Amino acid sequence: MKTTSLRIDTARLNRRLGELGKRGALAGGGVCRLALTDEDRAGRELVVGWMRELGLEVAIDRIGNVIGIRKGSQDGPPVVTGSHIDTVATGGLYDGNLGVLGGLEVIARLNEAGIATEKPLAVGFFTNEEGARFAPDMMGSGVHQGSMSLEQMLSTVGIDGCTVVDELERIGYAGDVPCGNFEAQAYLELHIEQGPVLEQEGTVIGAVTGVQGISWTEVLFTGTSNHAGTTPMSMRCDAGHAAAELTTFVRGLTREMGGAQVGTVGSIRLEPDLINVIASKAKLTIDLRNTDARKLVAAEQRFYAFLEEIAGKEGVQVEHRSLARSEPVDFHEEVIARVESHAQDLGHPVRRLPSGAGHDAQMFAPNCPSGMIFVPSAKGVSHNVREFTEAEHIEAGGNVLLQTLLELAG
Amino acid sequence: MKTTSLRIDTARLNRRLGELGKRGALAGGGVCRLALTDEDRAGRELVVGWMRELGLEVAIDRIGNVIGIRKGSQDGPPVVTGSHIDTVATGGLYDGNLGVLGGLEVIARLNEAGIATEKPLAVGFFTNEEGARFAPDMMGSGVHQGSMSLEQMLSTVGIDGCTVVDELERIGYAGDVPCGNFEAQAYLELHIEQGPVLEQEGTVIGAVTGVQGISWTEVLFTGTSNHAGTTPMSMRCDAGHAAAELTTFVRGLTREMGGAQVGTVGSIRLEPDLINVIASKAKLTIDLRNTDARKLVAAEQRFYAFLEEIAGKEGVQVEHRSLARSEPVDFHEEVIARVESHAQDLGHPVRRLPSGAGHDAQMFAPNCPSGMIFVPSAKGVSHNVREFTEAEHIEAGGNVLLQTLLELAG
Repeated sequence: MKTTSLRIDTARLNRRLGELGKRGALAGGGVCRLALTDEDRAGRELVVGWMRELGLEVAIDRIGNVIGIRKGSQDGPPVVTGSHIDTVATGGLYDGNLGVLGGLEVIARLNEAGIATEKPLAVGFFTNEEGARFAPDMMGSGVHQGSMSLEQMLSTVGIDGCTVVDELERIGYAGDVPCGNFEAQAYLELHIEQGPVLEQEGTVIGAVTGVQGISWTEVLFTGTSNHAGTTPMSMRCDAGHAAAELTTFVRGLTREMGGAQVGTVGSIRLEPDLINVIASKAKLTIDLRNTDARKLVAAEQRFYAFLEEIAGKEGVQVEHRSLARSEPVDFHEEVIARVESHAQDLGHPVRRLPSGAGHDAQMFAPNCPSGMIFVPSAKGVSHNVREFTEAEHIEAGGNVLLQTLLELAG
Repeated sequence: MKTTSLRIDTARLNRRLGELGKRGALAGGGVCRLALTDEDRAGRELVVGWMRELGLEVAIDRIGNVIGIRKGSQDGPPVVTGSHIDTVATGGLYDGNLGVLGGLEVIARLNEAGIATEKPLAVGFFTNEEGARFAPDMMGSGVHQGSMSLEQMLSTVGIDGCTVVDELERIGYAGDVPCGNFEAQAYLELHIEQGPVLEQEGTVIGAVTGVQGISWTEVLFTGTSNHAGTTPMSMRCDAGHAAAELTTFVRGLTREMGGAQVGTVGSIRLEPDLINVIASKAKLTIDLRNTDARKLVAAEQRFYAFLEEIAGKEGVQVEHRSLARSEPVDFHEEVIARVESHAQDLGHPVRRLPSGAGHDAQMFAPNCPSGMIFVPSAKGVSHNVREFTEAEHIEAGGNVLLQTLLELAG
């Protein structure tokens, strides 16, 4: 058969998603499969079993990443696909799992059709992508691709006081394959969008252009607590007002900069937080993201300048500290274009879009041509037990993954 | 001696303020003398003792108000001065107490100088002005002047589950004098400003023109909780942003309206209140005050209109409810002018100003010529253990009270 007419078995992929979702299933729906817990072990064993059934050569590395390799007709580094199977505490069936099981479905169809690729193909799942039990997130792929220190990550202490190394040993996933020198021909990850753009536009496939850079800042304004009735407006040093001005400034900044610039004030806390007392303190958080490194810096600079401006105007003091910062990641133009073109060939509406969330793919991006395929998240909901993706969208994403991997692997 | 050269004994007044401040004294300074507690009883007994020493005829009414009357050369309704001796949980030595003990100091000087007034003079302290234990505030003067129902107020349940009537009986202040038909010739109250205006202007006496009307509203915006990275700005329904816009609108409204219009957003609470999640809920409080009834209504109307406007713009739902509302009170022009003129005669810088807080005087205002004298609060601080007023300002206020009462009582 022609490889261009090869299609995934969506029912089988969906059955596997459902089967994996039973490991760590929550009573009311959804999944809790935090990294390196008993539930994660159960999930890992299920997936490793499927890998072996599919004839993959399974390797487990020292940080617990699992890579299953299907030989090519030539030697050399594999074309890699995959994602993660750990979840947040109230997660769904699709985040991460779709990329791993989508990769296995591609292998299954190639096996069934008797198709050999020139380059080896690998399907991996990477330890602790979510960071919900152990910080930082994307730990397994970070160590795998050499941007995080193995020793440091092994000694990471989780929210429950356990260390990564102890938990890897406990669940039997402290492998012996070295980390940090794995070469990949290319990396391609299928993932749910986790946002509303594709669904709202009626688009089925997202050709992901990169991952936004993130800048998180905490700001503390300190003013003077005073009586709301007896203090004239001209004599106020209102920390709450400064917080509100900063919040509306952030919105205005995103409007002016446009493009991929987003900004969010998700947390505001006032003290004393009383109806008839001017706030003496306001602590708020600002989340700025952009796909363009220089634009993100420009947004930060304008933000810092406004902090001083509003503090001066309102007569309040201001302190700020960075809570997190990551540079934007650009995916490889050739990979993006191939995803786009296969989606078109398969008759699916497609658009380029950046990822607003972090993914394992960004750890591969500095080292090999990398990219991602997004499929719609119903109502944009993710990290939530109501996370859902339609079967027809899974089918579309799986087939784009199949065709693009076939092209990359020759 | 000429009555115009009569002056109070500031040292004695300050000693009495200190002595009363020992009833319910807090370890680190300040006072906790919540209405009808054991501490309030101790304060009441001290003040009633002083009233009797000064020869006043003491009457206790059914809501526990205590009125000490000094006969005039003629019969008829008395000229009344006074205030309250209950405090908030972390109060100071001056709020309320200055008006009561200032009144007693006037009586003491008249006694010492052997001066008789034509009309009787009365010094009163009114039950539960603060409202810190039992709502509403200004309860004693409200019942005294017939604007609150005695039966309803007696059955009020406090923050600790006790009722007013039980606590009045327990501390021995459930008097037998009827309430609601007490006639006063005039009412004049000496009080600390509880705000920063007099101090910042270097003014010593405030001739109080009235009490601001107050409108308290709670607003709840309900938007959609979404990912701060994956949700484009154009698709957000951000309850936190709506709250910030409303907060800056309130400031703008006060700027545009000018004059006595003040507005405060003292409490803002977001849900889920996380750095990387767009807020689905924002609950905030708005405190609007004006001395002009029509302007307060105008401010409310513009505020309500903006609520709908911002809710529409941001795609969030809005609910609001009134938490409290009181009409502005105007004091009597003749009383205001007399205070002003006596301050000038005594050589004290004086200005007219409205009160931003509620006072017992406003309960008398509908029934007799009423007014207030303000003296500076250091740094504008009140309802706070650091509340303080300089001896020279107490002296100035006490002498203006003395001279104005003498004039009112003839």
